[in-house]
Amino acid sequence: MSQLQRITIQPFQLQQGQISFTPQQQHYLLRVLRLQEGDKFIAMDGMGKWWLAQVAGDQGQVLEALQVETELPVSITLMLALPKGNGFDDVVRCCTELGVACIVPILSDRTLLNPSPQKLERWRRIAAEAAEQSERSFIPTILEPIAFTKAINECEANQRFICEARGHYLHLSKVIDNNLSREIAIATGPEGGWTDQEIAIAQEAEFQPISLGRRILRAVTAPMVAVSLIAAACEL
Amino acid sequence: MSQLQRITIQPFQLQQGQISFTPQQQHYLLRVLRLQEGDKFIAMDGMGKWWLAQVAGDQGQVLEALQVETELPVSITLMLALPKGNGFDDVVRCCTELGVACIVPILSDRTLLNPSPQKLERWRRIAAEAAEQSERSFIPTILEPIAFTKAINECEANQRFICEARGHYLHLSKVIDNNLSREIAIATGPEGGWTDQEIAIAQEAEFQPISLGRRILRAVTAPMVAVSLIAAACEL
Repeated sequence: MSQLQRITIQPFQLQQGQISFTPQQQHYLLRVLRLQEGDKFIAMDGMGKWWLAQVAGDQGQVLEALQVETELPVSITLMLALPKGNGFDDVVRCCTELGVACIVPILSDRTLLNPSPQKLERWRRIAAEAAEQSERSFIPTILEPIAFTKAINECEANQRFICEARGHYLHLSKVIDNNLSREIAIATGPEGGWTDQEIAIAQEAEFQPISLGRRILRAVTAPMVAVSLIAAACEL
Repeated sequence: MSQLQRITIQPFQLQQGQISFTPQQQHYLLRVLRLQEGDKFIAMDGMGKWWLAQVAGDQGQVLEALQVETELPVSITLMLALPKGNGFDDVVRCCTELGVACIVPILSDRTLLNPSPQKLERWRRIAAEAAEQSERSFIPTILEPIAFTKAINECEANQRFICEARGHYLHLSKVIDNNLSREIAIATGPEGGWTDQEIAIAQEAEFQPISLGRRILRAVTAPMVAVSLIAAACEL
């Protein structure tokens, strides 16, 4: 099982085994993720078709069609403010089981510690184990920790949510019902929540603030709930 | 904050401050839970009204109306096969945050250990802490561990589900959509899942087998997902 970045393509992007990237995809794969010539990635059409492909110049070259039965039909990126202690381990394990495609550890205003490189290795190992145990076809990508504003502004998903415990926002379930994009990003906050400034920055970048219910969830519970709801909505 | 058993009543059951129990409620409160004269409990109408009441003979006597804003409008009973290690702690904590009303630890065919009385005290302490942190009005009831068949047959909820990872059952989301009862029981299995015999016993007792998605979830993840989905469906 491999840990490969996924992109979602429109039908017209795939012709004669060649994938033409959108400018955003090109930027994301080649600049942000720094994929090199020949590096592999997954292309999905969001309707159940999957291909293994590799970078060839400024295009993608399809290597083979993939048989995928346990992956979600949408790509969920979880942008997760680093919680205290070992909470991140639990979130990586649970959200991998639930089908997340990518996890972005976020350094927020209320994040206490910049994690060590050993932590990143540990999270990737946990994701690999959890993917195998839950019988997934792929291991989610876990990016290096990144500052909140940079992560928010570099987000490429066309549907974007930020979870906020206080305030009177619509429930996530209400927003995603019958209205799911194929690439979804969801940001969940640290202990103590996002700062007002962070919410404002996210809204500026077209992240919709949403609620996960009337009770105050811990920083490790909120992402599991958010991913559960999105996964259920797209897997019905 | 108090740890009180909840019952859901129909409008006709409450007259002039007296609650007449159904035969099932009477059996449940007085026989199964062994409530005594003067013991308090919560009555809810499933549409947002709550009362504190006490046992008075074979009826309930309303003491006061309660102002409740962070509780779910339905009563969820989680019937949870005891997992290995300390997994139960995490489930109690998370599912309390998510709004569960009652947790029933189940001794299933694949349960390894009968927990010590200290464990039960520990779970109740965790539930109390989690209820406070999540700003709930009530602490969920945690019953003493009980054998699978007895728990299944004594269940009083009028909507009953049992989660099963293998097999081609409908997704829980599909089943509860727009179709929620006011008292819901959901049973989740141990590591390795329920035995075929347990599923058969549950079906006999009108528990509907349901799926939580195509991936295999751990015994500690499944209950959090199930409660997340039910809570979201009733709190929209």
